[in-house]
Parts: sequence; structure tokens; C-alpha cells
Amino acid sequence: MPITVVGSIAYDTVKTPFGERERMLGGAAVHFSLAASFFDDVRVVGPVGEDFGERQLDIMRARGVDVSDVERVAGGKTFFWHGEYGWDLNSRETLDTQLGVFEGFAPKLSEGSRASDVLFLANIQPDLQQQVRGQMTGARFVALDSMNLWIDIARDSLVAAIESVDCVILNDAELRQLTGKPNLVSAAREVLSWAPADAAGSGARGPRGPRVIVAKQGEYGAALVTHEGFFALPAYPLETVIDPTGAGDTFAGGLVGYIAAHPDEELSDALLRRAMAHATVLASFNVEEFGTERMQRLTGTEIAARIHELHAMTQFSGAPLQLRG
Amino acid sequence: MPITVVGSIAYDTVKTPFGERERMLGGAAVHFSLAASFFDDVRVVGPVGEDFGERQLDIMRARGVDVSDVERVAGGKTFFWHGEYGWDLNSRETLDTQLGVFEGFAPKLSEGSRASDVLFLANIQPDLQQQVRGQMTGARFVALDSMNLWIDIARDSLVAAIESVDCVILNDAELRQLTGKPNLVSAAREVLSWAPADAAGSGARGPRGPRVIVAKQGEYGAALVTHEGFFALPAYPLETVIDPTGAGDTFAGGLVGYIAAHPDEELSDALLRRAMAHATVLASFNVEEFGTERMQRLTGTEIAARIHELHAMTQFSGAPLQLRG
Repeated sequence: MPITVVGSIAYDTVKTPFGERERMLGGAAVHFSLAASFFDDVRVVGPVGEDFGERQLDIMRARGVDVSDVERVAGGKTFFWHGEYGWDLNSRETLDTQLGVFEGFAPKLSEGSRASDVLFLANIQPDLQQQVRGQMTGARFVALDSMNLWIDIARDSLVAAIESVDCVILNDAELRQLTGKPNLVSAAREVLSWAPADAAGSGARGPRGPRVIVAKQGEYGAALVTHEGFFALPAYPLETVIDPTGAGDTFAGGLVGYIAAHPDEELSDALLRRAMAHATVLASFNVEEFGTERMQRLTGTEIAARIHELHAMTQFSGAPLQLRG
Repeated sequence: MPITVVGSIAYDTVKTPFGERERMLGGAAVHFSLAASFFDDVRVVGPVGEDFGERQLDIMRARGVDVSDVERVAGGKTFFWHGEYGWDLNSRETLDTQLGVFEGFAPKLSEGSRASDVLFLANIQPDLQQQVRGQMTGARFVALDSMNLWIDIARDSLVAAIESVDCVILNDAELRQLTGKPNLVSAAREVLSWAPADAAGSGARGPRGPRVIVAKQGEYGAALVTHEGFFALPAYPLETVIDPTGAGDTFAGGLVGYIAAHPDEELSDALLRRAMAHATVLASFNVEEFGTERMQRLTGTEIAARIHELHAMTQFSGAPLQLRG
């Protein structure tokens, strides 16, 4: 089922211990859509400036992404981010952010984008997320990302946005901050409780509210909490990570893409776990090179091979043992 | 096969967001031996002061631990640690450390302790670890823990100690610090490379050197790196963690204990993965209450049930999917 993603399309200048790149293609909607394109049709909604080139659009088109709803704002400048990562890539400093055309962004979906069955609300101001959500009331599955900034300055809006989606994908620290609960499981259960009482286990078009909580844990992997249970997966182990930018959005693209590609399957933990595995593997490729470089030449065969490896790396036998006492 | 553990036996005063305890039984050797006692015979070697009571020894005796090599130093005081944890339990501050009898500790193993087939060198000064190792040259399997302090002030000694053991169990940040490699896999492979060239895959009594690297990742779980491959396991998810003190040593007790209990099985990844699962589960029980409180009334049935749950929480189907591109 087609996926619509609303979010940033950006130029990123990034420095990591392994090198740097100036004004390369980036942005949450871009990273998401390249990943999701391995699973289903994707439509990107977001603004760019006059400085945005056809070459950048072609990177998305080459993966079959529909960019007809990318809005080029006359006289505007494309969102720009400049960041630098520390030696272990776990810390990063933002050196510059220029919102550009993103400042006045008021997403209005075309008929084509509204017709998608699956929606991903990348990290944008939560009132805008709600506004987009309101334009796609018929979507079968809606997922949302956010960030600490909105928890700080627009928490009520964010909570309202979360109450209108099926799936919340956040960094684990953000999940703790959002709920004020230091424990991951408690924090996730708190967000699950924000769904209307009759929403849990409801059908595709029934009452809504978060029923899938995904906590991204960076190099440690990711955890999934639903009413059905708990699941956790390590990150795919890499000896060299070149650029973590966009890993979270690539993860989301794998997750949401996988779910979109299985429209006839119930949103069970079994399905979500397979989606988590694909999300994990997609993210592992993204960080192997700068920006979108690795994703541009990634193949389905490579993804499948790494899924197989990840599966092998997480297996253990639960063989019973006679314990003392 | 019997296990000998050499390390601290302590009084801990601990404050967490959930309460506090004064001068409760603690220490690496204690936490280790309570966990390992579910798998095999354990002998504890370490000094205590005159302030150490029979009641404390009885806690270990109740789990079948042999405390006959616990040395009571006349006029001495038992090692004392006083610490406080932050709101999310991921940070802790040491408020006081009194080495007491640990200051002049020169471990001399009795004939009984030397006869064990498995040795765990808990976190003590690495020269002492080597000294103990030298007294147990016949051991089939030797594992070692350490800490950032020794990497800072006695790195050469620590490296020499590591070169004399089979298995290194460290926090992942320590593994990075030790090797200067920010990436977990690279760091672990670096330590594996410290083994003599002909040691990899050698038999039980062949040339030695580290062939099993375990990176503890706290609430995120733990990873295993060997020449054979990579394995990672999330922590068992708990809604409430009361006191993380001793989690790492309890983990080591589960890991080493499980290996000790399988003397006829080759040290394969399959065995090590099952050991990791038991280590994870043991640690999850330890943190549910203060100090040794939960471990004192833990049962084998409870452990087995949680192994089963952990197994279920980490399964996903690697079902193939036709990917686009």
C-alpha cells in the first residue's frame, strides 16, 4: 500500500571522525523514503528552496520515490543542517540550523498523497503533524517520530499528535523525557495508555491511539513494546560507522515500509518483529557511508543477506538445565 | 566442575530512588558466587575484617557456597562502599570507599581452591589477578573482570592479565577505553588479537589468551564476540529496577557458572550464547531488590521461566520478502 511521508528535505554538512561532506542531500523525509522504497510506493511531501536541484530529486526518483509533491518555494532556501560528531559517534554538536522554507511550512497534501494507506509523520512541529494526520483520516497505519525540542516546548501538542497515531518511534531517552518515567518499559506502557480505552486491539478503522511503541537505542539496537509483549533487537554490528546521520529515519523507513508491504496481515507482534529486523538492517547500511551514498546503491539481495545474518546473531537455544535450588 | 572466585567481599551502603540500605552484604565475589551457585560448586576467596559476621557468611552458605577460604583478618575492617544512584539508575556516585583489609590483600589459594577447574578473577588490581592465575595453571576456563581505574593506572598489568585468561567480561565503555577503539566490534577484535597466534581454537590445555569477549551494556543487555562470531542479547525488561549494584558480577556468575556446569561441552558459540542468556536472567533478578535480597530467595524454577520468556522476547522470523531493487 502506498506510503506518504511528510518531513524535512535538507542539505546536510556533516563532519565525522572519518571525513566530511558539504551540502549533501539529507532530511528525515529523504532518508525515510529511500529505505521505504525497498518495500512499497512512497510519496514525499515537503518543501525545498530554489537552491534545490533536479540532481537531488533524481536520487529519490532513482529509487522509484514519487517526488511530485515536493514543493519548490520561490525565493526560498532549502532547510540546512550542519553538524559534527564526536570520536565514538554517540555525541553530536549542531553547528548551524537554517530552517529556510521550513519556517512557513503548512503541509497541504495533494489528492494523490492523501490516498496513501500508510502515513509517516517525520519529526516536524507536532501541530503540523496533527494537521497532516487530519488530512488522512482514512489511513490504515500512521506512525510518528519527534524529538526532545518538541517535548520541551510543545509537549501538549505532541501528546495530542501521539494520541492520533498507531505507532510512535522515538529515541529511548526521548521516550523517558516525554513520560517522565526513567524506565523504558514503564515509559512505553505509559504512552500505550494514552490510547482510548476501547482502541487496544481494535480493527484498522476503529478508534485510534498508540498501540506500537518503538524505542530507538542507537548502537544498542531498538525495542518494541505493544499490548502483546516486548521485543528487542541489537543493532547490526559494524566495525566502522562513517556517518550516523539519518539512521533513525532510515530505521523508520524500514519499519513502516515493511508494514505497508503487508496490508493483508494483522498488525501482530510477529509482523512488527520482522519489520523491526528490516528497519535495523536498513539503518545499518545507511551509516556505512555519508548521507545517502550507501542507500543509493543498496540492493534487495544485500538486505536479505543481512537479515539472515542478524537472525543468526540473535539466536540461542533455550535448552532446559537442571539448576541447583 | 568447581569454580573458584577471587574478589571483594564487602559491606555496601546504597541509596537509589527507591530507598536505601546500610552496610548490607555486597562485593563482587559475593554477587558472583550467589549467581554461580545455581550451576556448580563455588569457592570464595577474599578477605574480610573482624566486623564481618557469621550471618553474612550464612547468606553464602545457604546457597551451598564454600566460604572456608574467606580469610578473616585480625584487627581489620571489611571493604566498605557507599554509593548513590541517579534517577534513571544509569549514573552513580561513589560517596565513600574504604579498602580496609583489601589494602594488603595478597591472595594465596588453598589446595582446595586451586583444585577448581574454573576460575573467575573479579575486579581487583590486575597484578593480583595474574598472581592468582599463576596459582591455578591447570584451570580449564578462566574469566576476568576489571574496571576503568585499572585501565587508567595499571594498563600494562591489565593487558598482561588479560593475555593469561580465556574470557574477558567488561562494560562496553571499558572495552573501548582499554583498546582506544570507539567501536565495540573493533575493540573486541583487538582484545581477541592479544591471544598468541596459535591459541585461537586450541584445546582446553593449549596455549591461552582471550578467546571470549563479553561486553556488558547495562540496561541494553550484553554482546559476545568470539572468533566464531557475534551475538547480542537485550537485558530482560523490568518495569522497576531497585538497585543495580552487583548486576555485573551476578551476570558474570551466571555466565561462568553455566560454562562450569558443562565441562564436557566444547566452548562453542552455542554454549556461550546459552551462558549469556542465563547471565542476563540472573542479573535481572539481582537488580529487583537491594543487594543480595532477591538472590537469597531465588529458585531454579524462576530462572528457567525467565529464560523461556527471554527466548520468546528475542525471536523473529527471517521470512524472505521480495524486495524492490
